[in-house]
Amino acid sequence: MELLPAAAVDEAAAAEEGSVLVKNLYLSCDPYMRPKMSRPLHQSYTAAFVPGTAITGYGVSEVVRSSRPGLAAGDLVWGMTGWEDYSIIKPPFTAILTKIQPDDGVPLSYYTGILGMPGLTAYVGFHHICSPKAGETVYVSAASGAVGQLVGQFARLLGCHVVGSAGSKEKVDLLINKFGFHDAFNYKEEGGDLAGALKKRFPDGIDVYFENVGGKMLEAVLLNMKVHGRIAVCGLISQYNLTAGEKEADVGVRNLTSIVSKRIRMQGFIEPDHKHLYPEYMAWVLPHIKEGRVVYVEDVADGLDAAPAALIGLFHGRNVGKQVVRLTAPE
Amino acid sequence: MELLPAAAVDEAAAAEEGSVLVKNLYLSCDPYMRPKMSRPLHQSYTAAFVPGTAITGYGVSEVVRSSRPGLAAGDLVWGMTGWEDYSIIKPPFTAILTKIQPDDGVPLSYYTGILGMPGLTAYVGFHHICSPKAGETVYVSAASGAVGQLVGQFARLLGCHVVGSAGSKEKVDLLINKFGFHDAFNYKEEGGDLAGALKKRFPDGIDVYFENVGGKMLEAVLLNMKVHGRIAVCGLISQYNLTAGEKEADVGVRNLTSIVSKRIRMQGFIEPDHKHLYPEYMAWVLPHIKEGRVVYVEDVADGLDAAPAALIGLFHGRNVGKQVVRLTAPE
Repeated sequence: MELLPAAAVDEAAAAEEGSVLVKNLYLSCDPYMRPKMSRPLHQSYTAAFVPGTAITGYGVSEVVRSSRPGLAAGDLVWGMTGWEDYSIIKPPFTAILTKIQPDDGVPLSYYTGILGMPGLTAYVGFHHICSPKAGETVYVSAASGAVGQLVGQFARLLGCHVVGSAGSKEKVDLLINKFGFHDAFNYKEEGGDLAGALKKRFPDGIDVYFENVGGKMLEAVLLNMKVHGRIAVCGLISQYNLTAGEKEADVGVRNLTSIVSKRIRMQGFIEPDHKHLYPEYMAWVLPHIKEGRVVYVEDVADGLDAAPAALIGLFHGRNVGKQVVRLTAPE
Repeated sequence: MELLPAAAVDEAAAAEEGSVLVKNLYLSCDPYMRPKMSRPLHQSYTAAFVPGTAITGYGVSEVVRSSRPGLAAGDLVWGMTGWEDYSIIKPPFTAILTKIQPDDGVPLSYYTGILGMPGLTAYVGFHHICSPKAGETVYVSAASGAVGQLVGQFARLLGCHVVGSAGSKEKVDLLINKFGFHDAFNYKEEGGDLAGALKKRFPDGIDVYFENVGGKMLEAVLLNMKVHGRIAVCGLISQYNLTAGEKEADVGVRNLTSIVSKRIRMQGFIEPDHKHLYPEYMAWVLPHIKEGRVVYVEDVADGLDAAPAALIGLFHGRNVGKQVVRLTAPE
């Protein structure tokens, strides 16, 4: 372990009651971080990043010094931290620091993914927002990502017929051979005919769509939904890195008339609204992990210097699986 | 009563078991009828009209001859009938013929409106799809129409703050002075700034939007929804009479990113899925009508010759209130 910088020690000592000094071990790269960089901030549900300060995001950390009851030096936690070696976490963010009970066979980095925000996102979004039933057809876009790979596996476990899309042959292979999707396709290889690509895979239509992408993909899905279909809108990654004139906010999404004719329910959601379900989710998912029914693929970048490119890579589909940044030496 | 044309008698006699010959008294003009005229039929949930045969639609009729058990000559019914003086209603449409129990003070024409399909649409859409709570803010577009005027009154009865929009001063006056909306505006007089018009009326945002319009109105509403807001998508009348290149299907709807950031639920629905709630609705609404808490405004056109213009008028906002066609002499 590195020596704690003197400045950090001083700041920690001076920090307000209830703060926690942590050494960051893993940082999470998540799509929601991109809209926080837009100024003025456009319709994001979290505050903008503040230039001149460390970027904040989910991470796994080790407690160095704590004035929050229930946390002590040496404890492992996950929650909101900074993109830096050491962070001082102050209220109210200390309230969402979750103590990790280390468990053999479950890598610590999983708390940025399957056991963290993306995991609860997939669980809530699929099981609670989509109201899925065994035998239904499920489509997942960005399906090899941090959330999509889990939704596909959860759908398979429930007995749904699940198809995913991703942006490379490598990812499509993962979907079928690693995650057990029943079918998958590379959306870049469909000649722009996404509606046709879906029609081929869902001749009778889609019951449940787990939306990670937005834009043209949503337009194609609306044409292929079944009557009484449900769309959980988790994210719109196709939109976040566009410039003015390209965004949905400028060009719009077509085919919304399907919402009436097919009586579609479309529901946006974010994980922080559902934190109370985390214990329920952990109790459900841990046995699935340990007994091999659910796997998780991560794309690990090493060192803080690699973090900016790793984050940017999300918006170009460079990551294969959950993008995480490791600040420690490999375990 | 006119003499029954001989041809109709013959046809009725020859009709299949279970058919009902009726004399039509009132015909209903409803927005959903417009998409049934598009060929090829684009995403409509009901079959296209068949050129060379009478247009079909909701109506109030008197039974002339019946081979359906439970219906006899002289009974009054509402359901799907034809735009003609006499219609032979065959299975499966006989199954949705609903016998009317005539009631003093409740005009028969109401069964094309408040006591028929538009009434159940407003009830289901507002009370069941919108999940409204007392004290919430409710916005209704096309608010003086067959459905909108009811949603506004139902929202007021529940204790919501309800604002409506319509397309003329006369309609806006109706909303406030007749239906008891708390505020109302003429969307044509807002200089194209619908988002600003809503911001003025809903400084803290909209909890519930009852969508009758679509297009630019939906874009403006999305910017003004509150977190956890709900949108019941009943119809998209702004879209039905557009030509290719103007429709949402061509130009798209912007601002859908609000669905995630504000965790909005958007739910399409149609009345036929909820027929089982009709008795519940009737039991609820009849006392409100009789005791004056809910009123209903109709725009009555006289005679079958006036029916086509009355239907077309819907898409130009010429009707003030529910558009109905009367085939009998005034009661």
